[in-house]
Amino acid sequence: MSNVTIVGAGMMGAAMAWPLSDNGHHVRLVGTHLDSEIIASCLEKRFHPRLRRQLPDNVQPYYVDQVGPALEGVDVVVSGVSSAGIHWIGPTLAPHLKPGMKIIAVTKGLEATADGHLRILPDVLADELPAAVRGKVSLAAIGGPCIAGELAGRRQTCVYFTSRDAAVLPLLRQMFKTSYYHIFLSTDIIGVEVCVALKNAYTLAVGMAEGMLERLGGPDEAKALNHNPAAAIFGASAKEMARLVAVLGGNPAMVTSLPGVGDQYVTCMGGRTVRLGRLLGKGLTYQQAQAEMAEQTLESAFVLAQIAKALPGLEAAGLLGRDELPLTRCLCRSISGNALAAVDFDRLFQDC
Amino acid sequence: MSNVTIVGAGMMGAAMAWPLSDNGHHVRLVGTHLDSEIIASCLEKRFHPRLRRQLPDNVQPYYVDQVGPALEGVDVVVSGVSSAGIHWIGPTLAPHLKPGMKIIAVTKGLEATADGHLRILPDVLADELPAAVRGKVSLAAIGGPCIAGELAGRRQTCVYFTSRDAAVLPLLRQMFKTSYYHIFLSTDIIGVEVCVALKNAYTLAVGMAEGMLERLGGPDEAKALNHNPAAAIFGASAKEMARLVAVLGGNPAMVTSLPGVGDQYVTCMGGRTVRLGRLLGKGLTYQQAQAEMAEQTLESAFVLAQIAKALPGLEAAGLLGRDELPLTRCLCRSISGNALAAVDFDRLFQDC
Repeated sequence: MSNVTIVGAGMMGAAMAWPLSDNGHHVRLVGTHLDSEIIASCLEKRFHPRLRRQLPDNVQPYYVDQVGPALEGVDVVVSGVSSAGIHWIGPTLAPHLKPGMKIIAVTKGLEATADGHLRILPDVLADELPAAVRGKVSLAAIGGPCIAGELAGRRQTCVYFTSRDAAVLPLLRQMFKTSYYHIFLSTDIIGVEVCVALKNAYTLAVGMAEGMLERLGGPDEAKALNHNPAAAIFGASAKEMARLVAVLGGNPAMVTSLPGVGDQYVTCMGGRTVRLGRLLGKGLTYQQAQAEMAEQTLESAFVLAQIAKALPGLEAAGLLGRDELPLTRCLCRSISGNALAAVDFDRLFQDC
Repeated sequence: MSNVTIVGAGMMGAAMAWPLSDNGHHVRLVGTHLDSEIIASCLEKRFHPRLRRQLPDNVQPYYVDQVGPALEGVDVVVSGVSSAGIHWIGPTLAPHLKPGMKIIAVTKGLEATADGHLRILPDVLADELPAAVRGKVSLAAIGGPCIAGELAGRRQTCVYFTSRDAAVLPLLRQMFKTSYYHIFLSTDIIGVEVCVALKNAYTLAVGMAEGMLERLGGPDEAKALNHNPAAAIFGASAKEMARLVAVLGGNPAMVTSLPGVGDQYVTCMGGRTVRLGRLLGKGLTYQQAQAEMAEQTLESAFVLAQIAKALPGLEAAGLLGRDELPLTRCLCRSISGNALAAVDFDRLFQDC
């Protein structure tokens, strides 16, 4: 049995405590500075207010200022922060890391570099570690369709664990896998991470179909909804996701798998991203939609802003044609240009 | 303006009348022997009872015994029958076909041959035509996410028109395309048709997740649903669909597009296939589920029975390994072996 520390006590980070605890590991759950209310509730009532569940017995909650003690003597650290926390977690962990430790991240996103490339977040995290430690800890990430509340509810869940360090993956699987948490391994960290980042962006687009229907006045007299455009957008998402995975150096086969369309399917079933899409489809600008959704982390908008920043660089490097990715570009204009969302259905696919 | 005859007045066949009529074509809508009530309503009230809509003005309904007159002087025939009607429509059309006529089919499915291969339905239809006519008419098919009631409601809809005869495709697009019906062309008829047939089979599997939740007693105290397993199954569907498309000679890129995951997404949004999946996931055998769904066409079960018949032949021919397609095999056992549906999540994906 090992000591495992989860840093970030939001829904996804905290949910990782369930399979770990079921396997008998000692779990330390550290809130970030945004999670103080969650940790207070966990300490006082052993109740996670966002997951709406009692914590398993062998989970010990910690406030952010106790991150040092919480990382003492642990083998594995789970990075459970959102993409907004990616530059915080590296320096926070750094002083407490020891050679041989393993970091596994649930954070999803991409980050544009100044010269217009897109980097996966485990690489961004690695860069934040001091050079002395960087090569001596293993970095891994988790991708695949996993609603946190369902994992904590011990629903059947399939994910990929991914790392460039093939040796670390079986060890991590051994620690986390349960009868309900099924783990597959891949060294294609680019493929997995690009898929799981993009699925947020494209789910926004699928959500727009519902907003378009509202703009039309809702279902008609024969109760026709707007699933046809949603499905066309879903199909275009898969196509553009496969293209971007290939451009960034991953294997596009990840798209027809868990991290690609599997993860996008689950994301389309509801939540913040779909709501933001609905508002944009209804005809709101991103600024207006943002105002309606105050204080919610909008990972989809974050990743689209990064893609918008990187597109000119990817084109200049000859990696991407100007006519490619019509859906992605439409989304980028909505988020970064504050344009009204307008999908040109005639351009989503090509004759072939 | 052309004369176009649609044979099969069910929802999908009849819905094709809307874009054709909006383009000013004269549409003749012929019911099969199963559509007499629909045709009676169309003749008496100009109301399609299953689409729950008034027919457009330039649509003329015909009973099945008038199929000869209905096919006189037409350029294009739409085959709007279900897969169960595929052996009926060829001989029915045959005496009335003239060289140069074009047949475009909405029928989705696959048919196993005695030696264990799977054929697409446009090829099955072609075989039913007399040799004298066969080479002189063009066969095409439509694939992509299209709920009939939404097409008739003029919702934005994207589809592929596909044929081995590249020359006929632009002519057909010209006739059918409207501001809401977006048509892309492909000569990969195997790729398109295998995708749209398989999406029914795999939607059955996605629907099972809901039934599994019912068997567990429904959502738990924190309201966890069962989207994680549904999404894992959706991802595995895409993977196995891509494999089967390749085995049967199509381009797997069709999976990350409209006919593959696009069509599967829309099919998962509800309807008969999801309901059948729910019953199987709940623990009913296929026989029991069939009894509960009496008199409904179960395209998903039809295609799975064909796949079950073909699997041994595909293996014997060295086209498919015995360990491949675990999800497809699980579905085949449920439908053809009347086994209880039991997805082995640990086998759905592989380390890579």
